[in-house]
Amino acid sequence: MTMKILFIGDVVGSPGRDQLQHYLPKLKQKYQPQFTIVNGENAASGKGITEKIYKQFLEWGAQVITMGNHTWNKKEIFEFIDDAKYMIRPANFPEGTPGKGIQYINWNNIVIAVINLQGRTFLDPIDDPFRKADELIDEARKKTNIIFVDFHAEATSEKQALAWYLDGRVSAVVGTHTHTQTADERILDNGTAYITDVGMTGPYNGILGTEREAVLKKFLTNLPVRFEVTKEGKDQLNGVLINIDEKTGKAKDIKRILINDDHPFFS
Amino acid sequence: MTMKILFIGDVVGSPGRDQLQHYLPKLKQKYQPQFTIVNGENAASGKGITEKIYKQFLEWGAQVITMGNHTWNKKEIFEFIDDAKYMIRPANFPEGTPGKGIQYINWNNIVIAVINLQGRTFLDPIDDPFRKADELIDEARKKTNIIFVDFHAEATSEKQALAWYLDGRVSAVVGTHTHTQTADERILDNGTAYITDVGMTGPYNGILGTEREAVLKKFLTNLPVRFEVTKEGKDQLNGVLINIDEKTGKAKDIKRILINDDHPFFS
Amino acid sequence: MTMKILFIGDVVGSPGRDQLQHYLPKLKQKYQPQFTIVNGENAASGKGITEKIYKQFLEWGAQVITMGNHTWNKKEIFEFIDDAKYMIRPANFPEGTPGKGIQYINWNNIVIAVINLQGRTFLDPIDDPFRKADELIDEARKKTNIIFVDFHAEATSEKQALAWYLDGRVSAVVGTHTHTQTADERILDNGTAYITDVGMTGPYNGILGTEREAVLKKFLTNLPVRFEVTKEGKDQLNGVLINIDEKTGKAKDIKRILINDDHPFFS
Amino acid sequence: MTMKILFIGDVVGSPGRDQLQHYLPKLKQKYQPQFTIVNGENAASGKGITEKIYKQFLEWGAQVITMGNHTWNKKEIFEFIDDAKYMIRPANFPEGTPGKGIQYINWNNIVIAVINLQGRTFLDPIDDPFRKADELIDEARKKTNIIFVDFHAEATSEKQALAWYLDGRVSAVVGTHTHTQTADERILDNGTAYITDVGMTGPYNGILGTEREAVLKKFLTNLPVRFEVTKEGKDQLNGVLINIDEKTGKAKDIKRILINDDHPFFS
Ligand SMILES: [Fe+2]
Ligand SMILES: [Fe+2]
Ligand SMILES: [Fe+2]
Ligand SMILES: [Fe+2]
Ligand SMILES: [Fe+2]
Ligand SMILES: [Fe+2]
Ligand SMILES: [Fe+2]
Ligand SMILES: [Fe+2]
Repeated sequence: MTMKILFIGDVVGSPGRDQLQHYLPKLKQKYQPQFTIVNGENAASGKGITEKIYKQFLEWGAQVITMGNHTWNKKEIFEFIDDAKYMIRPANFPEGTPGKGIQYINWNNIVIAVINLQGRTFLDPIDDPFRKADELIDEARKKTNIIFVDFHAEATSEKQALAWYLDGRVSAVVGTHTHTQTADERILDNGTAYITDVGMTGPYNGILGTEREAVLKKFLTNLPVRFEVTKEGKDQLNGVLINIDEKTGKAKDIKRILINDDHPFFS
Repeated sequence: MTMKILFIGDVVGSPGRDQLQHYLPKLKQKYQPQFTIVNGENAASGKGITEKIYKQFLEWGAQVITMGNHTWNKKEIFEFIDDAKYMIRPANFPEGTPGKGIQYINWNNIVIAVINLQGRTFLDPIDDPFRKADELIDEARKKTNIIFVDFHAEATSEKQALAWYLDGRVSAVVGTHTHTQTADERILDNGTAYITDVGMTGPYNGILGTEREAVLKKFLTNLPVRFEVTKEGKDQLNGVLINIDEKTGKAKDIKRILINDDHPFFS
Repeated sequence: MTMKILFIGDVVGSPGRDQLQHYLPKLKQKYQPQFTIVNGENAASGKGITEKIYKQFLEWGAQVITMGNHTWNKKEIFEFIDDAKYMIRPANFPEGTPGKGIQYINWNNIVIAVINLQGRTFLDPIDDPFRKADELIDEARKKTNIIFVDFHAEATSEKQALAWYLDGRVSAVVGTHTHTQTADERILDNGTAYITDVGMTGPYNGILGTEREAVLKKFLTNLPVRFEVTKEGKDQLNGVLINIDEKTGKAKDIKRILINDDHPFFS
Repeated sequence: MTMKILFIGDVVGSPGRDQLQHYLPKLKQKYQPQFTIVNGENAASGKGITEKIYKQFLEWGAQVITMGNHTWNKKEIFEFIDDAKYMIRPANFPEGTPGKGIQYINWNNIVIAVINLQGRTFLDPIDDPFRKADELIDEARKKTNIIFVDFHAEATSEKQALAWYLDGRVSAVVGTHTHTQTADERILDNGTAYITDVGMTGPYNGILGTEREAVLKKFLTNLPVRFEVTKEGKDQLNGVLINIDEKTGKAKDIKRILINDDHPFFS
């Protein structure tokens, strides 16, 4: 049997949440995924997440929320992360950090493991994502062949390296963080679905979701600016749909989802 | 009248050169571009370019060769760059650096300007690409409305920022350097064609064109490794085709070109 | 005649201001400098400066306040910097940035130029400090042979490179920013006084002036922390005294000043 | 009884080796240290070390050679590091890396542990030096109270943070890597001797030991340059001498050693 996993890229602020609420039911209707995973590291005003938003995402149909380098931006995260069973943050954050980096979910007795990792190239020096992946995959494979990895990283080299490193050991490695969908989705030689970056969900006319004026002022003057999520204007949703052989855990297909004014949604 | 510009992303080593030689005639046949531009910063064994390769690229149908952070990797560049009329390197390299960052080419009395710039985020601190763009565009617009920019940069934010900054002032901003094609090609509000990264031309099963074993060893051990272009295995070509209104210089359309085993070429 | 310039390294928060107020009269008494320059980039609660503090520093005996990467941290800077005649910020900030990077002061008709520059290695990509130095020195030498440079930079290589680059063209290059005094003060071959870093003025038991607990939490967990200036405990003052031949502008001597519990002040 | 440890900062190329050979006997004569440790990461032509040089350093009187980010620069290191009992490289290099990060030496039945660690700020992302320190100190304290740490790191904040973190648990934390001696040597509150950087041993008129012309060309043009150790000209030796209470392992005193034309050696 084929399992379908729908993954939605970094949801940015209220425009992103609106997109998610609007399209998630339609995407579920259209693609009938058994599992839905959403990256929520930018869900609250562009940086971090709140308990309210976390719960909304679950209500709207997400089963696991993954995070990234903006995990801790909203202070209330420290109050609810221990109770947020279906939220994971990069597993290679330093030992003792609140939260966890792996979660299991199931559908009709079929279990899948969802792992969140973060890269180190051009990002903060944390624990080794490659060895942490080894460790968690060893653990997960005792329970399931279906393992999904959200690798939150900047450098294309590090993302592709991890994907090839895990090829054949996990069902999928999808990149997040650059907020820009790549066109390199494919099935690697040993059956792992891969895409360098899923992209973002939120404003279509900002710069990575942020108001253009502020970002341009930063690049032109290096003066401090307040980055706000672009509120007016057009929006987008970025995701991927992955088909996985339930027996082997091998991916059979990965399909990009891109909804914006230039690529309207067809039900 | 509509001008078509064909741009081919970073050609990596001999696999990349073979792909270029093989597909460039077919792509020209299929799309009938008036102008063809190729990024050649990785053309010689993965880093830099030689005079022989530069001339081959022109013979095979490129009219301008753009470069990037690997411009100087082959020592002979210093001997021929002054005579390489149709090679440009990032214009915002420090004053006094050999070579130039803008070149004009023409077809039937229609002139286009081609500009090469390099980003600074996660890359070496060079001159400001935004102000250098202003300066060169002011110069170019005295000669033509059709201005093409290859922005060689790492960060998606910097690339999108420059594109929006130049929107309406140039015909196209295409990103290079990450060796990974993005799926965000579009026409911005004021008529500039944009894609965050065109991707690379060369090995399909390496990591950015480099042998996987070496890159993985680097990430896993941080030991010194020798990066070689992946020689056996499958290859790819990445490019974009941009349609531009010859009168206004506005882009009408941008189309991604992706040729690999998963996306075969159809003539 | 010999001119003496007293320079005080980054004054951090109220402990730093208290040290400055307490020791500046004593140091002036002891060393009789004609000119006194103070780096104030951390003067207001560890980051940035306020108008009140700027004016206090002048009252206490500073003649020029230099800044650095924390220039803009206090919002009110934008309101008073245009009127703050004796404050300079790094001259190689992007064109159009508020403030200026050079100022002239005089004593008995002897004019000296004070220049502030910022490095780019491990810091934000701004304009080239080497070429900006060339430009400002050309300008300054029309008015005086005595030119003092505060080079606010992280990397020891960049600081030493600028010093040797300017050797013989300026009277002194003193480094700031690392908050740690170096022991390499010397007169370079052509008469420029140099020290890689003057150090900081403020808490003696913090980490660069910041509370140790917060900095350690950051390194151990990478969680967000609030950096406060260490308030209890011992304090220090770091500076240098430079003797310059008034005719030639050549430095004759550079002497480190270090006042803390391990190195008490003797009048 | 008081143990004295003499530590010599990064020995750079043949000028550095000459300085070491020349002054080590004199320093031993003058200070009578029981233990002598030398950082050798730049000993062979400015980057890396050879077996011959390693053995020379032991002959000349070093008992442990510490390394840093240039550990692997000379290829032959891989052939002899396993047999180089008294060479240590940063202990927080990835698991499985050749070599080791801790070594014990003894004098008259008094054992000391020497640990080498490397920072991550502005350097490659390796394992956590803080937690690796915890682990090794736990191990070492079963054998001795006298623990010496060479922390090879760039950022003053990271170095001071590790020192305060280890204060009272080790006898000394000395920084290396910036090739510039700092003037902040002190005994921390709980008895750990500390200096942010010991400095380098080798050319006095280069930039961190490298030819000035090459470094300046790099900063001014960003073109590739060949970095050579400055061969002509004056030299220097940088080190520290630390007195430690043999019973408690607490440091009683730390003294900077600086030998150059401006600070001649007195026997
Ligand atoms: Fe994000
Ligand atoms: Fe992110
Ligand atoms: Fe490239
Ligand atoms: Fe590149
Ligand atoms: Fe500072
Ligand atoms: Fe600073
Ligand atoms: Fe070194
Ligand atoms: Fe080093």
